[in-house]
Amino acid sequence: MDQPATQSSFSPRDPEWERRCRESFARQHYMRFIGGALTALAPGRCSVEVALKPELTQQRGFLHGGVTAALADTAAGFAAYSLMPAGSSPLTVEFKINLMAPAVGERFVATGQVVRGGRLLSIVDTEVFAVSGGRSKPIAKMLATLICMEGTPDRAAD
Amino acid sequence: MDQPATQSSFSPRDPEWERRCRESFARQHYMRFIGGALTALAPGRCSVEVALKPELTQQRGFLHGGVTAALADTAAGFAAYSLMPAGSSPLTVEFKINLMAPAVGERFVATGQVVRGGRLLSIVDTEVFAVSGGRSKPIAKMLATLICMEGTPDRAAD
Amino acid sequence: MDQPATQSSFSPRDPEWERRCRESFARQHYMRFIGGALTALAPGRCSVEVALKPELTQQRGFLHGGVTAALADTAAGFAAYSLMPAGSSPLTVEFKINLMAPAVGERFVATGQVVRGGRLLSIVDTEVFAVSGGRSKPIAKMLATLICMEGTPDRAAD
Amino acid sequence: MDQPATQSSFSPRDPEWERRCRESFARQHYMRFIGGALTALAPGRCSVEVALKPELTQQRGFLHGGVTAALADTAAGFAAYSLMPAGSSPLTVEFKINLMAPAVGERFVATGQVVRGGRLLSIVDTEVFAVSGGRSKPIAKMLATLICMEGTPDRAAD
Repeated sequence: MDQPATQSSFSPRDPEWERRCRESFARQHYMRFIGGALTALAPGRCSVEVALKPELTQQRGFLHGGVTAALADTAAGFAAYSLMPAGSSPLTVEFKINLMAPAVGERFVATGQVVRGGRLLSIVDTEVFAVSGGRSKPIAKMLATLICMEGTPDRAAD
Repeated sequence: MDQPATQSSFSPRDPEWERRCRESFARQHYMRFIGGALTALAPGRCSVEVALKPELTQQRGFLHGGVTAALADTAAGFAAYSLMPAGSSPLTVEFKINLMAPAVGERFVATGQVVRGGRLLSIVDTEVFAVSGGRSKPIAKMLATLICMEGTPDRAAD
Repeated sequence: MDQPATQSSFSPRDPEWERRCRESFARQHYMRFIGGALTALAPGRCSVEVALKPELTQQRGFLHGGVTAALADTAAGFAAYSLMPAGSSPLTVEFKINLMAPAVGERFVATGQVVRGGRLLSIVDTEVFAVSGGRSKPIAKMLATLICMEGTPDRAAD
Repeated sequence: MDQPATQSSFSPRDPEWERRCRESFARQHYMRFIGGALTALAPGRCSVEVALKPELTQQRGFLHGGVTAALADTAAGFAAYSLMPAGSSPLTVEFKINLMAPAVGERFVATGQVVRGGRLLSIVDTEVFAVSGGRSKPIAKMLATLICMEGTPDRAAD
């Protein structure tokens, strides 16, 4: 397959990568809906977080597994997108997530790290932590595959 | 491991399975938040659906992958929970989802089917369809593992 | 993404698909090594099987999970390859497998069925059964993603 | 769920953990069959490796994906087993593996690291590297879930 970037050599292919990622995140209605924020961004790495709110919980009062997955998927997506060329768009092919511990906390932080950044496919390792009173505990781990759609601007058609 | 029920022999262990599932679904704040509805329920099988709304979309106007995953995870959870004994609670150990096609449609239906219903672990196969103008198209497929927490009522402590 | 074939409309892109698949299988040294046989082949569908032998077991005498995975991965690969164009080659991007029951049996049959056959990506659902005395029992389920490498003949360079 | 050990605090529950792991590995017929060796072992961590041989290859001359998966599954299994109590046995519930690059090399090393070591469930992160002429390159990444079977000695019945 294509020659992937290795973890120690991630350099963005688009000098405008950071502006492009932040603008794309700002267009994610769903992230705004749940109160998600992009809190860290570097080439091949991204953190997204959300505060606990009653409307994001399941029947036992923990963060819904689907919200944990959405946070992790979003962090993975922008970690991969940061390395993609101008004019392209990331698409999640698939992901697998282990919900390792009950999602109990004041806020939740997902951090995605690209482990293979190929021209076509990216593989991203993402961890989610629950934070309470300054203490942080791992609650989930995701392994995801994304594809780079070239010539597909990352926005809805006007 | 424990002797699993096979797909053709699913019979609920709790005569109150249906009431218990419907009450538990009603306590899912997050499902209410996104407008999710439980639209079909049988022993070992469950469908959950949601209508497209702008606040559930990602930057390109499709249903956010995290919402697709939440729908599928919820359908899988209630499919498994329908076969669990009274006084227990389902917990998603992990799931893997393939997002097979862009989530374009008027509404989205996830249907989970238990493929192995053991005393401790359940394995559930779930498909998600996008529906538009009466036509239905598969957009995602999930394979999930759940665990039965006995002696753990499926609700938040009062 | 590309327009995928749906499950009801699988027709091979290469009239020589069957010969090509059988020749490729015959070149799999590892399948010969473990005694694997291609026992069924249709467009988008493939079965591979192996008989139990002591050298394929783990410490408790069951088929090793890695052999179960290899069987399923091979069935998935040829199910996908049957739909790919001439001159191409399938590559497994990733798979997830649930080992649902102990792999106890006389022989083991993996059957892969393409659920999405795109120009670039294929998604294959595979089940593995243990067969003993004419009775068959499901022991594993796999969900896999494969990519079509065009212009890459499916053989080692001479 | 049960209180898991965190990555920094792994201490074996069985003082005989190392002997028990090495004896169990020695009973794996399949590892002997492919020439696999246990090359590193610590509480919560294990490496297994194999040299390239023609009989372990697929049709293009690379290590068969099923062998890569078997190596990674075995490393994950012993990483988890090292933390389990006496008289128990590890069982792989499921795993997901990304085959990130062609498996080209002289030998292949899989290293599993427990990321959550619960009383019942263990989650293990495993990487596989190809080694050639002293250089090492990542070729696969696995995320696996294992269950501890208490009261089930890790061996075939006599």
